[in-house]
Amino acid sequence: MKVTEPLTVADLSATPDDSSKVRISFKGTLGSYNEDAALKAYPKCKTVPCDEFEDAFKAVELWLAEKAVLPIENSSGGSIHRNYDLLLRHRLHIVGEVQLPVNFCLLALPGVRIEQLKRVLSHPQALALSDIFLSKLGVARENVDDTASAAQYVASNGLRDAAVVASIRAAQVYGLNVLAEKIQDDPDNITRFLVLARDPIISRTDKPFKTSIVFTLEEGPGILFKALAVFALRDINLTKIESRPQRKRPLRVVDDSNTGAAKYFDYLFYIDFEASMAEPRAQNALGHLQEFATFLRVLGCYPMDTTL
Amino acid sequence: MKVTEPLTVADLSATPDDSSKVRISFKGTLGSYNEDAALKAYPKCKTVPCDEFEDAFKAVELWLAEKAVLPIENSSGGSIHRNYDLLLRHRLHIVGEVQLPVNFCLLALPGVRIEQLKRVLSHPQALALSDIFLSKLGVARENVDDTASAAQYVASNGLRDAAVVASIRAAQVYGLNVLAEKIQDDPDNITRFLVLARDPIISRTDKPFKTSIVFTLEEGPGILFKALAVFALRDINLTKIESRPQRKRPLRVVDDSNTGAAKYFDYLFYIDFEASMAEPRAQNALGHLQEFATFLRVLGCYPMDTTL
Repeated sequence: MKVTEPLTVADLSATPDDSSKVRISFKGTLGSYNEDAALKAYPKCKTVPCDEFEDAFKAVELWLAEKAVLPIENSSGGSIHRNYDLLLRHRLHIVGEVQLPVNFCLLALPGVRIEQLKRVLSHPQALALSDIFLSKLGVARENVDDTASAAQYVASNGLRDAAVVASIRAAQVYGLNVLAEKIQDDPDNITRFLVLARDPIISRTDKPFKTSIVFTLEEGPGILFKALAVFALRDINLTKIESRPQRKRPLRVVDDSNTGAAKYFDYLFYIDFEASMAEPRAQNALGHLQEFATFLRVLGCYPMDTTL
Repeated sequence: MKVTEPLTVADLSATPDDSSKVRISFKGTLGSYNEDAALKAYPKCKTVPCDEFEDAFKAVELWLAEKAVLPIENSSGGSIHRNYDLLLRHRLHIVGEVQLPVNFCLLALPGVRIEQLKRVLSHPQALALSDIFLSKLGVARENVDDTASAAQYVASNGLRDAAVVASIRAAQVYGLNVLAEKIQDDPDNITRFLVLARDPIISRTDKPFKTSIVFTLEEGPGILFKALAVFALRDINLTKIESRPQRKRPLRVVDDSNTGAAKYFDYLFYIDFEASMAEPRAQNALGHLQEFATFLRVLGCYPMDTTL
């Protein structure tokens, strides 16, 4: 009997034969930026649209999808704490990351020229982040639930006075023309997504791996310094550190003992470090941290997205 | 001639005589949550509504307002990096902080009962964060630019089939009734705002003060550890630490030498620490940090909001 193979880096390099079997859940409709991220990681995957981020998690937990894609931080908006909360409340493991430069496009029905436009529809954040371009255009702005829904609405109603701000993929999905690309105010806006699966992947050392952890500490000056020492003493580089005040707010933490108990913390700390759990120095660092951390969970160890 | 007095903690305790003269700029229309924060800090102030956050900064720079109020982080959404960017691009100083528990309310015209509602209008994020309550209500949801505009729209058009999700203050401003309070999914959602002014306040040691800094470091393992040592060695507690990848993105930094030059960083670090710049240990810590930081700016030293 062939033992089911653990997922490896090869999954992320996405050879057509493998990735075409993979179903990836995401929040939004076809053509959304979350779907773009899924397709960057697995170009031939079958994407599974979900109403909410939590539904994308459930899709994986209920075996309706193999993996989920989740935006976790944006260079302009910062970390998305409510998505970190989902990671803590659920049992999925990070098996990959995707960095995607934001590319807001102005889309309209084929044949529609920019001069004919009277209004632009999109998610309010997409409209706000494209403020300079849209102000020059001088058209009315209308809010819609998400960028891809706006594209769908304009296409299915044959609106010739309206454009939408959405992705190139939304143009392909709904048969719209791209009138302008990269219309956002900040040309270097990047969103980082995580790929989640039911099982962790086997960490390796032949490619750059990153490990994401969350932990809590006793209160007091110098205690975070002590926590960072476990990495500094082993020459492990950090790519992210963030403290998150909890102010005695209960948090449902699913840990390995499967108690799922609500715990109270003053602060949560999120750290990403550049090392694979296959390396002894990473194992030693986490062993050292566990000596005094009041809670520690490895969210995942995964190949770094070095394509940017 | 009387020398203009520097702002002190007394300004934040807001005696009616003083605070009634203060004009505070904020992003949004009357009754928005940003205005709520301004009124918590200065109950009798004159609030100055602005179209965008940047306009609120400009209002202070052009002496149209004495102070601006800016949301900087939310317990569910995380730090708002684009507002940190505004702090770096402008010359204003943090002179106070306000922590405000989010209280989303369901508002409708007087006499309208919950059973009569067919739709609810609000900013899409307010609708999304009140999902559980609104799902039970089972009414259509319509997106509007901000919560207070939704209240204004329903009131001025006399809509009796519509409610809005907005603040208690919006109910007062637009003559609406509060049908339900605290309807958000997360009852402990808190937003932290900064109060900004043209001049820094004089740091004191008779009340708890907090200092916010931003800095950059050379790349390499252990360098952040070294930076935290300057605080740990002096028993200074940190209330916030956050790394922000810049990926060689240029950032226009306004420094004291007034060059306003664009600089390139790999990472920015944000730290808030519990000490007043009036304390030698805080001065020594920053002197120590400056020995090896490639860039360092004190965003402000201000009384902590301990009301939560």
